[in-house]
Amino acid sequence: MPHKIAILGASGYTGAELVRLLATHPTMEIVALSADRKAGQDMGSVFPHLRHLDLPALVKIDEIDFSAVDLVFCALPHATTQSVINSLPRDLKVVDLSADFRLRDPAAYQKWYGQPHVATELQAEAVYGLTEFYRDEIRAARLVACTGCNAATGQFALRPLIAAGLVDLDDIIIDLKTGVSGAGRSPKENLLHAELSEGTHAYGVGGVHRHLGEFDQEFSALAGRKVEVQFTPHLLPANRGILATVYVKGDPAAIHAELTSAYEAEPFVQVLPFGTHPSTRHVRGGNFVHLGVVGDRRPDRAIVIAALDNLTKGSSGQALQNANLMLGEEETTGLMLAPVFP
Amino acid sequence: MPHKIAILGASGYTGAELVRLLATHPTMEIVALSADRKAGQDMGSVFPHLRHLDLPALVKIDEIDFSAVDLVFCALPHATTQSVINSLPRDLKVVDLSADFRLRDPAAYQKWYGQPHVATELQAEAVYGLTEFYRDEIRAARLVACTGCNAATGQFALRPLIAAGLVDLDDIIIDLKTGVSGAGRSPKENLLHAELSEGTHAYGVGGVHRHLGEFDQEFSALAGRKVEVQFTPHLLPANRGILATVYVKGDPAAIHAELTSAYEAEPFVQVLPFGTHPSTRHVRGGNFVHLGVVGDRRPDRAIVIAALDNLTKGSSGQALQNANLMLGEEETTGLMLAPVFP
Amino acid sequence: MPHKIAILGASGYTGAELVRLLATHPTMEIVALSADRKAGQDMGSVFPHLRHLDLPALVKIDEIDFSAVDLVFCALPHATTQSVINSLPRDLKVVDLSADFRLRDPAAYQKWYGQPHVATELQAEAVYGLTEFYRDEIRAARLVACTGCNAATGQFALRPLIAAGLVDLDDIIIDLKTGVSGAGRSPKENLLHAELSEGTHAYGVGGVHRHLGEFDQEFSALAGRKVEVQFTPHLLPANRGILATVYVKGDPAAIHAELTSAYEAEPFVQVLPFGTHPSTRHVRGGNFVHLGVVGDRRPDRAIVIAALDNLTKGSSGQALQNANLMLGEEETTGLMLAPVFP
Amino acid sequence: MPHKIAILGASGYTGAELVRLLATHPTMEIVALSADRKAGQDMGSVFPHLRHLDLPALVKIDEIDFSAVDLVFCALPHATTQSVINSLPRDLKVVDLSADFRLRDPAAYQKWYGQPHVATELQAEAVYGLTEFYRDEIRAARLVACTGCNAATGQFALRPLIAAGLVDLDDIIIDLKTGVSGAGRSPKENLLHAELSEGTHAYGVGGVHRHLGEFDQEFSALAGRKVEVQFTPHLLPANRGILATVYVKGDPAAIHAELTSAYEAEPFVQVLPFGTHPSTRHVRGGNFVHLGVVGDRRPDRAIVIAALDNLTKGSSGQALQNANLMLGEEETTGLMLAPVFP
Repeated sequence: MPHKIAILGASGYTGAELVRLLATHPTMEIVALSADRKAGQDMGSVFPHLRHLDLPALVKIDEIDFSAVDLVFCALPHATTQSVINSLPRDLKVVDLSADFRLRDPAAYQKWYGQPHVATELQAEAVYGLTEFYRDEIRAARLVACTGCNAATGQFALRPLIAAGLVDLDDIIIDLKTGVSGAGRSPKENLLHAELSEGTHAYGVGGVHRHLGEFDQEFSALAGRKVEVQFTPHLLPANRGILATVYVKGDPAAIHAELTSAYEAEPFVQVLPFGTHPSTRHVRGGNFVHLGVVGDRRPDRAIVIAALDNLTKGSSGQALQNANLMLGEEETTGLMLAPVFP
Repeated sequence: MPHKIAILGASGYTGAELVRLLATHPTMEIVALSADRKAGQDMGSVFPHLRHLDLPALVKIDEIDFSAVDLVFCALPHATTQSVINSLPRDLKVVDLSADFRLRDPAAYQKWYGQPHVATELQAEAVYGLTEFYRDEIRAARLVACTGCNAATGQFALRPLIAAGLVDLDDIIIDLKTGVSGAGRSPKENLLHAELSEGTHAYGVGGVHRHLGEFDQEFSALAGRKVEVQFTPHLLPANRGILATVYVKGDPAAIHAELTSAYEAEPFVQVLPFGTHPSTRHVRGGNFVHLGVVGDRRPDRAIVIAALDNLTKGSSGQALQNANLMLGEEETTGLMLAPVFP
Repeated sequence: MPHKIAILGASGYTGAELVRLLATHPTMEIVALSADRKAGQDMGSVFPHLRHLDLPALVKIDEIDFSAVDLVFCALPHATTQSVINSLPRDLKVVDLSADFRLRDPAAYQKWYGQPHVATELQAEAVYGLTEFYRDEIRAARLVACTGCNAATGQFALRPLIAAGLVDLDDIIIDLKTGVSGAGRSPKENLLHAELSEGTHAYGVGGVHRHLGEFDQEFSALAGRKVEVQFTPHLLPANRGILATVYVKGDPAAIHAELTSAYEAEPFVQVLPFGTHPSTRHVRGGNFVHLGVVGDRRPDRAIVIAALDNLTKGSSGQALQNANLMLGEEETTGLMLAPVFP
Repeated sequence: MPHKIAILGASGYTGAELVRLLATHPTMEIVALSADRKAGQDMGSVFPHLRHLDLPALVKIDEIDFSAVDLVFCALPHATTQSVINSLPRDLKVVDLSADFRLRDPAAYQKWYGQPHVATELQAEAVYGLTEFYRDEIRAARLVACTGCNAATGQFALRPLIAAGLVDLDDIIIDLKTGVSGAGRSPKENLLHAELSEGTHAYGVGGVHRHLGEFDQEFSALAGRKVEVQFTPHLLPANRGILATVYVKGDPAAIHAELTSAYEAEPFVQVLPFGTHPSTRHVRGGNFVHLGVVGDRRPDRAIVIAALDNLTKGSSGQALQNANLMLGEEETTGLMLAPVFP
């Protein structure tokens, strides 16, 4: 008997990516898809690349019978998410792709998202969904809050190094380049093709991007002291892919050795040979992270570069990885699809 | 026991696409990969998107022990292909992705490819590999010649219509737009990013593109008379995808009905509702063909639009579909991957 | 004393393109810029590529003192345009970039634009702005209605051929590929980068695109009988550029000779050597049209291919060319900028 | 009488960009164009976007009569350049776009370019061509060595800050994103559209990129001590444009004030309001630099972001700016073309 799956917010890019991945998953079955403004439409008309699939039509959330659902993927905007999840049955497993339950501290939520959290009880219950580092907690969790795509990329590069005390905690810079699908499907002037193709610009510069809330929470917990990285995201004229170029002070060889050893048994994390580094093009559509380490000409400085697909490992693939654990499946089930290149 | 598979020419895009598809195929195992100039390298260094796979290193063709191989995919340049396949054991199953065995008539080969065929005996034996139309012959074949990607796209739009006598055979125009990966991975000035992005141009204009050899052969056979279409391919600033806009004279409703009925049971061919039409973006990385029919304002004229991914349904996916049949597997095995969008 | 110029609708792409061209025009000075929703902003914040220029701030139309203006470029949406131009002083020269005054017949306007025209008197006065063919009328005109970008591209390929009786009037097909900037700067889901990059699709298929109104009007007038072409536009993943691939029945050599002779003295129209054809990449940002003719393998069939930049020769460059004539300047003044490649 | 100009290496992208700019320059006339492999061809067939111009055909260098030339632009590969310039008449003005004369120290040249310099006498004579900082020397120079495109971008952001002692010299990081045209027009697998579009990767990581030679020379001279920055370039899926994201330790407000004041009178350098920052899309095809400064959440850290077009301000526009000075023209002549957006 397959697990019965519902996806809330199926008309966005992460919702569609979940459907794509579930399409070949052997033990999960999609029984409900919601989309507020597009309720009543077929998934195949909203996302024609999925038209060959036999899928339930899009409905409003309150039309879903959650008693017949084993697990919900919630791919709604932040803020909206809190009240929706708050209204779901309390024994329903939930994998949330929004930002609403990533920050454990209500004050941090208020600081980064500009409004008080309305479901602080659930916030306390939620497990941070970066699978490779919270595997046991996720397996036992009812509510998992998937990591933000940028936050995930930076953490894959840095967590083992901070945990091992290998880098100067006061001088970490994450210069990140991200594809545009991470900005979602809402029509905005600044997301038009004519505005974004053929160039790049930074955004959220100077310590104001919300994913810093996750970096601060996670890195400070790992280090046992306050850690505040610098973080500058840039918009790339590509749909998918994040490349994080991370500047650290520390011994490059030790850094490479630590990453190699930390990820040795990880099916989705590939550490490249020392001195080489990845491209976003080689993770497109796959659930993999590629990591590279290069030493700088200046001693005790290293550049760590991480690449992943924001829609797959950065959100929907990560979410499915978590769902596999929560439902007692092999973590890799349905996720070993090779990236699509070129 | 999985089928033992060799891929000749694995360092090109169609070779890589075969590896991508075979990566999650349950009953095929890659036992040998050849690449002439890159022999000795790892597949993961030639194509880093495949680095998570446990693959044999690239070797030269004559280093392969074909007695331990059940089926060979041959993804070599035309002309080279003839002599390579000619030298393989005669009981080895071969799926050829080149142009060398697509034309049954040696004179036609000479006309379109500018040199005599050197393996005319094999040419006579080869079965044309457009699966949906040569299924039984392919199942029984030893040597299958996969259809060219442009030729496949046009044929999906036109074969049922020509067979049913629904269109004027003297006035068929195929205006085609193709992604650049079809031009291969050889370094050429006219394939540079700076030369191809942000614009389009036609090529092979006026009846000189080699895929016309396939159109002529197949359409004339279907019609029982000589059929010569007009065909203009254009290069699209995208890596994957072919859109064929086909102009025909005939009744649009009858044309839509015929395509709907012809492809009703086909797992990979999707006929869209009358009046709607496809985008290449919705077939990227999938083995699907999307077909649309729109009637023109002028009576008895229709526009049939076909979209597929040149590397998947247009070559490597098609090749695997054929291999499944030749090896007694379900035709769809390993090929139901949903397209990747955006 | 420079001519005093106002641009209405300066926050759209054609408005910005006018400012770009006027920036180096020796005898025109921008004295007013309007933008309804963005009134009060600087042009440099709405279009940072123009921030080095000393420009008037954006205002609402009714804030402009038209008595101090010699010529107005009107780059507003259709329908809005009629009432705006209707309210301007009747002695003010106007170059309109919208569709509102292109069709001379009110019934045709109603048919293609779905509503009655509200300024039929002005409609009668307006001169069709395809400069190369209406030069004398434009020189004497007060109100010029610039040609639509797609309509212009098709006409450059076809007008001399229809006028000379060289092609079969019942079998003309224009398969057109256009960059996305032609769709404007309004935020719409289907214009997002993630929806448009890396692929193509047709739109307005089957004889419903509004530029057919222009083709019908102009070609029928030239032929002295009703001419209805087939026309299928496709959206190209590029910002600028239109390529029209035109299929005609007629003698290729005669067609090439006619185009060569028709455009011999034209500074902006380049006819390529017989058998060669253009790319949109080579007209980007320039006011040029490149035309090529290739004969098909089938006798008496030719493919005529035209390329231009939709924002330059297709709208704002064409508009400036007309304004030059209306103000007594050399037609080419400020317009000989070479295209930008790559 | 216009100045007589020759361009050596006119079949590359910087050569073509020079021709584009000179096309509307009022006092310079192109009298000779060289291209080794393409000698004998028309410029219009090598670069069809220039086909409307009346240009001399491409010849080999030794076919040029330099006695009839006032100034030579040399756009040849490094190493080749030395011997070519060495063989030119010693009274001929030369603007070199290669790397060969940028480094004043022969040992530095050998270190970064891997071979001894063969024209050290000329090397000593050459003036570094970053116009805004070497204006007087350039005006008097016979041989000017234009700055590398990446090196120029970083220097616009940093020179005034280093000169004013406003930033920590030991902790400067330049994370740079560059369009692909900077890599030239030579056919290489890694420059193909299919390899570069839709993603990004770093290259020359860790202190090995040759433009570091320029940074080291210039910044150390300004500071009066050895300065070694960290520098990581990334390839952007766009043809033109460089964005340098520069991380410095210093007071953001003071940094912004210094840049504002340093560039106040510069016609080509635009300093944006504090807290805002540029996009490469807004400098495409123009000779402008856009600079922004944002303060980080961490005290005494700033992010300085610089954008320019690598082919224009980064090479050919800069070269023309220098040529204007060397020939006694206004520095801005022919260079005030507005950027092309979108």
